[in-house]
Amino acid sequence: MRFEAPESLSEQIAQHIGQRIVVRSLKPGERIQELKVAGELNVSRGSVREALLILERRHLVEIYPRRGAVVSEMTLASVHALYDIYIDLLCMLGRKVLECWSGHEISALVEQVRKHASLLSGLKGAGSNPEQVIDAGFDLVRNACQMVENPFLQETLENFRPAISRTYYMVLENRPSEAAETGELFLKLADTAAGNDAARLQQVIQEYGEHQRKQIMHILKEESA
Amino acid sequence: MRFEAPESLSEQIAQHIGQRIVVRSLKPGERIQELKVAGELNVSRGSVREALLILERRHLVEIYPRRGAVVSEMTLASVHALYDIYIDLLCMLGRKVLECWSGHEISALVEQVRKHASLLSGLKGAGSNPEQVIDAGFDLVRNACQMVENPFLQETLENFRPAISRTYYMVLENRPSEAAETGELFLKLADTAAGNDAARLQQVIQEYGEHQRKQIMHILKEESA
Repeated sequence: MRFEAPESLSEQIAQHIGQRIVVRSLKPGERIQELKVAGELNVSRGSVREALLILERRHLVEIYPRRGAVVSEMTLASVHALYDIYIDLLCMLGRKVLECWSGHEISALVEQVRKHASLLSGLKGAGSNPEQVIDAGFDLVRNACQMVENPFLQETLENFRPAISRTYYMVLENRPSEAAETGELFLKLADTAAGNDAARLQQVIQEYGEHQRKQIMHILKEESA
Repeated sequence: MRFEAPESLSEQIAQHIGQRIVVRSLKPGERIQELKVAGELNVSRGSVREALLILERRHLVEIYPRRGAVVSEMTLASVHALYDIYIDLLCMLGRKVLECWSGHEISALVEQVRKHASLLSGLKGAGSNPEQVIDAGFDLVRNACQMVENPFLQETLENFRPAISRTYYMVLENRPSEAAETGELFLKLADTAAGNDAARLQQVIQEYGEHQRKQIMHILKEESA
């Protein structure tokens, strides 16, 4: 029997509020009131403050001195900036994966990518659960990170996960067929990684990131029109 | 007259403890006890908890559920991982600076780099104040970030600043002549940026990062010997 410490209370609150931000039941720009949240969740105000600091680290809220916390905006400019750095970090991850290539580990990872890809390609719109699709993608990122053994890269990517999820969630809600599209791109990713060509892998990662960026930009423009 | 909100209490506490970690009066691996710190600084335990979350974001402490906070380790592996991601982000910054090149802005930045460089080159060991040297370097990074207008890149780089400062502080304490060395490298950086050659700029940034990484690795090895 193994005992594991549960997530801290502030982490639990952060995940709860974070999830509401990702699915946009808390809207970009909306204020989050410490006291109100503390009352609703029946927790101390201090725990809510800690949760908000965790959410700030995850790029989901901004905290202004004396004015409190606000859900991060989702503008064309902010999404551009987000994808710029996220794509860069994914490229670094891809490069590092190939650098520390070892036959066994990489083929396990490639296998995982393939499985994930065929799962996605099978989803023709109906029955696709956005959260499941998103989680599967991030699990891959996490596994690749563990291979690379760079805790700073892993942490930085993890911290971007909720903000990227929020954009991806929006894409999958508006265009369910994107799940299958993503599957195709993942398949290409697996083939390229297996080929051990670093330059080509960077290119495919970039393509993948740019494809997502384009989708979310379209939807944001439609919304504001 | 303009009124500005002071830093929040938790931010002030974070800066105070962070500074002690950077200069290693709090040693890597040392435990930080919430209650003790709260007593010493005469603040609430809640404020200390918030400060520790801020320091975790800045890669200076690690918080373990139920065990509390510990000053981040400074091993060969962790410094390697830190420089890997930091150099990558600086290269991204350099690339973005040239992408959004506009004659006026870039020459102001280049001018600042040159001034900083000649200041550093003048410091021949004696009289060099590590903190001043380090701050000047980071001011440049901040200005370059503002030019690029990517708040995520800026925030991510800012969050790495204390951990990088800790390594750089160690280098300058052990090898004061490194201030002048850094000055030479900055001069090269300014010339390359002015030349608007992206590939070359990446190369120079990489050289600069690798030089620092080599210094800190030497010192860590000496210390452990």
